[in-house]
Amino acid sequence: MSEPRLTHLDEAGHARMVDVGDKDTTRRVAVASAALVLRPDTARMLVEGRLPKGDAIATARIAGIMAAKRTPDLIPLCHVVSLSGVEVEVEVDVDAGRCRITATATAADRTGVEMEALVAASTTALTLYDMTKAVERGAVVEHVRLESKTGGVRGDWHRDGAA
Amino acid sequence: MSEPRLTHLDEAGHARMVDVGDKDTTRRVAVASAALVLRPDTARMLVEGRLPKGDAIATARIAGIMAAKRTPDLIPLCHVVSLSGVEVEVEVDVDAGRCRITATATAADRTGVEMEALVAASTTALTLYDMTKAVERGAVVEHVRLESKTGGVRGDWHRDGAA
Amino acid sequence: MSEPRLTHLDEAGHARMVDVGDKDTTRRVAVASAALVLRPDTARMLVEGRLPKGDAIATARIAGIMAAKRTPDLIPLCHVVSLSGVEVEVEVDVDAGRCRITATATAADRTGVEMEALVAASTTALTLYDMTKAVERGAVVEHVRLESKTGGVRGDWHRDGAA
Amino acid sequence: MSEPRLTHLDEAGHARMVDVGDKDTTRRVAVASAALVLRPDTARMLVEGRLPKGDAIATARIAGIMAAKRTPDLIPLCHVVSLSGVEVEVEVDVDAGRCRITATATAADRTGVEMEALVAASTTALTLYDMTKAVERGAVVEHVRLESKTGGVRGDWHRDGAA
Amino acid sequence: MSEPRLTHLDEAGHARMVDVGDKDTTRRVAVASAALVLRPDTARMLVEGRLPKGDAIATARIAGIMAAKRTPDLIPLCHVVSLSGVEVEVEVDVDAGRCRITATATAADRTGVEMEALVAASTTALTLYDMTKAVERGAVVEHVRLESKTGGVRGDWHRDGAA
Amino acid sequence: MSEPRLTHLDEAGHARMVDVGDKDTTRRVAVASAALVLRPDTARMLVEGRLPKGDAIATARIAGIMAAKRTPDLIPLCHVVSLSGVEVEVEVDVDAGRCRITATATAADRTGVEMEALVAASTTALTLYDMTKAVERGAVVEHVRLESKTGGVRGDWHRDGAA
Repeated sequence: MSEPRLTHLDEAGHARMVDVGDKDTTRRVAVASAALVLRPDTARMLVEGRLPKGDAIATARIAGIMAAKRTPDLIPLCHVVSLSGVEVEVEVDVDAGRCRITATATAADRTGVEMEALVAASTTALTLYDMTKAVERGAVVEHVRLESKTGGVRGDWHRDGAA
Repeated sequence: MSEPRLTHLDEAGHARMVDVGDKDTTRRVAVASAALVLRPDTARMLVEGRLPKGDAIATARIAGIMAAKRTPDLIPLCHVVSLSGVEVEVEVDVDAGRCRITATATAADRTGVEMEALVAASTTALTLYDMTKAVERGAVVEHVRLESKTGGVRGDWHRDGAA
Repeated sequence: MSEPRLTHLDEAGHARMVDVGDKDTTRRVAVASAALVLRPDTARMLVEGRLPKGDAIATARIAGIMAAKRTPDLIPLCHVVSLSGVEVEVEVDVDAGRCRITATATAADRTGVEMEALVAASTTALTLYDMTKAVERGAVVEHVRLESKTGGVRGDWHRDGAA
Repeated sequence: MSEPRLTHLDEAGHARMVDVGDKDTTRRVAVASAALVLRPDTARMLVEGRLPKGDAIATARIAGIMAAKRTPDLIPLCHVVSLSGVEVEVEVDVDAGRCRITATATAADRTGVEMEALVAASTTALTLYDMTKAVERGAVVEHVRLESKTGGVRGDWHRDGAA
Repeated sequence: MSEPRLTHLDEAGHARMVDVGDKDTTRRVAVASAALVLRPDTARMLVEGRLPKGDAIATARIAGIMAAKRTPDLIPLCHVVSLSGVEVEVEVDVDAGRCRITATATAADRTGVEMEALVAASTTALTLYDMTKAVERGAVVEHVRLESKTGGVRGDWHRDGAA
Repeated sequence: MSEPRLTHLDEAGHARMVDVGDKDTTRRVAVASAALVLRPDTARMLVEGRLPKGDAIATARIAGIMAAKRTPDLIPLCHVVSLSGVEVEVEVDVDAGRCRITATATAADRTGVEMEALVAASTTALTLYDMTKAVERGAVVEHVRLESKTGGVRGDWHRDGAA
């Protein structure tokens, strides 16, 4: 591999999928959350199943679970992990005009599952938006964030004062 | 997570991908079968390689193998499993007008591979239909079913009197 | 391209994705159906939402709709079509132990959408199996078949005496 | 289809991919935005290319563009649209600790491309999080929202006072 | 969008999926080729169907056709095109130790289908390698290249003296 | 399974995904390379970031990494492996008109990762072609080949005199 006139372009700074082969396989759990902020009347239609596209919450939860499994297809440098479980909860506060999504991903693997939980929460929120956008185009996804992670060499992590 | 006015929508009954992290990793084998019932003259064209779209059986077997690997993309609550092998056999009984498909999936994992075998058998049958539908639109896929499974905590299972 | 000693392996008979560029773009509708045959007590658990994996029917319908969109990834020689709509209905006859699935695919395209409807019906049935298999491993998918197609140069087609 | 004892489960309220075959094909443009809120020192590492996983912004922009193309795989009831263009911009305000993402999707199709723009913005933000999470696990994705849409029968829409 | 302290990172030079909405929809054809160079005895096993993994040529051709449909998933800035046809030919010159692959992609679209033809040819060649690598690990894919393209505003293009 | 009049079509010779369940899980590393041969002036535009589609090298490297993860979707008989790392390097020799790509895939698994490394190298090269084809349609991908593999029962392998 001795090509003398090369212009090397792969010095530090370029993206790579870091080798995690030396890390231990441990049980990993990550919890992420997101919120969809919408009008109370839209939230009411959602809860009462009166949206034109149909059952928003069941659709959104399944979308979130399926998206978690596709995380390595979406996030370029994510490893393929063997998810052992995914759960997505949706709570709707009609008066406040707010759907709160909590996604939990678990795996026994060499890397964490934070991105899987975040992708699940985010996709659930976006699917809720898709189901409601015919009646309210301006709803906003807020606070897509990690709540906690456990397992792995760097130890556990919990967001302070997570709501 | 104490939001007082919430309407909880995730009580028991909503879909989730169950955590299998506590299950043992064991060798799993599942066999599934399916049949495509078609006219004897269509079956003859298929066996003799005279279909307009080309070699139906090679195409269908490969489709079945590839679909098995994509099972978690198709079946929402299926776990991603590390398939160690997939085989698909197609037998054609020309006089009876019947293609019989047998798919075997194997893995060393925490969950069974029944769905992988069923998806392989079903996709093989549908691909055979796709290859023959220009000459016979009314062919029917029948008897997509599990024949046996071995491995896993709940023990082995074999269909009684499987044909 | 004059290589004299070639062994030609691509004579008639080998698979190809036929060029449909000369066909007209017309409105296409295809209806397919399938059935999952299971025990009445399993059917009752399914209808009453008492299955361990959760809400089977909502999950299965969404799986069928999503699978329809992925038909060209599954069926090797299927064209990518612009589906304009997909609907999946699930009817459960508890006493007869039977879930009947009807999938309708529509598109304005150069090729028909029979495979999209069949993939939707088949995937819905397999997902129902996945949701129920913890309580009944022996359920069988039957009668995956085209019910009708309209649009396209070859004219409409309807199954005689469809049940 | 006269099965007398059926329990009909597909009454209004269940999800379906609405048929848009009667809508006109018009030029559609949607703009969505999102923000990743992080610490100024993390933002500085990002801008200066000193993150352990490499070049975050190039990676995130490409992730956003690729995700836009996969929107119908992620959002269950989204139609497959022929995107004619996708652009993703990332602006980093180091002092404020904020990456602002703007995604523009365009198509000539029967349905809008709001979801494509939102998926692009959201995936770009999540990829930036993935690239920075080794140095700051608590960064948050905020304000994933539609900024404007043009084209389609329902007319144009612009967020009031969009920041 | 007037944020004064921004560090703009999206000046010219960053990747984008160029908007082709103003281009005309015309019939596009692209032909690409590739070669797998291997030992004559391996080529003989391939032609005679004696490879351990099975029928290499049928498998490789189907892989090439399916990969063409997935081009926008693989090549980041490729548009999703409506392929109207894909054909893959494989010719084996046993004495010369050479498999020559020719892939033809056709579409009526706003962008060309060069990448689809190249992805088909390349994936066919890599699949042939996968099928033969148990007997010869050192085979090499050579000359993956466009042979011709027709249609589109920039006119037709043909490789001079294509072999 | 005793159907007397069957025409057996699955004798030796048909494709199957071989069961690797009995192989040991060992650390596997594979290195593959490829080259894109283009005109020096095109190579110069690429290095200087003056291509119409934007930053070619960052885009191509990410495309290669993402494609490696999708290898089992592309190569029909490849197993799904748990890649622990993927790196792609691109070196451009402007005067020689040559981009040299080196891809390294690592995993702890029962099968090798040669195909993952080859798919990464090949997709990187094709993406570079896609980014440059507006200025030079005739560039050619050459020498897509395995350079070395380590791990696995059959021992290590290194190409002699690899350039």
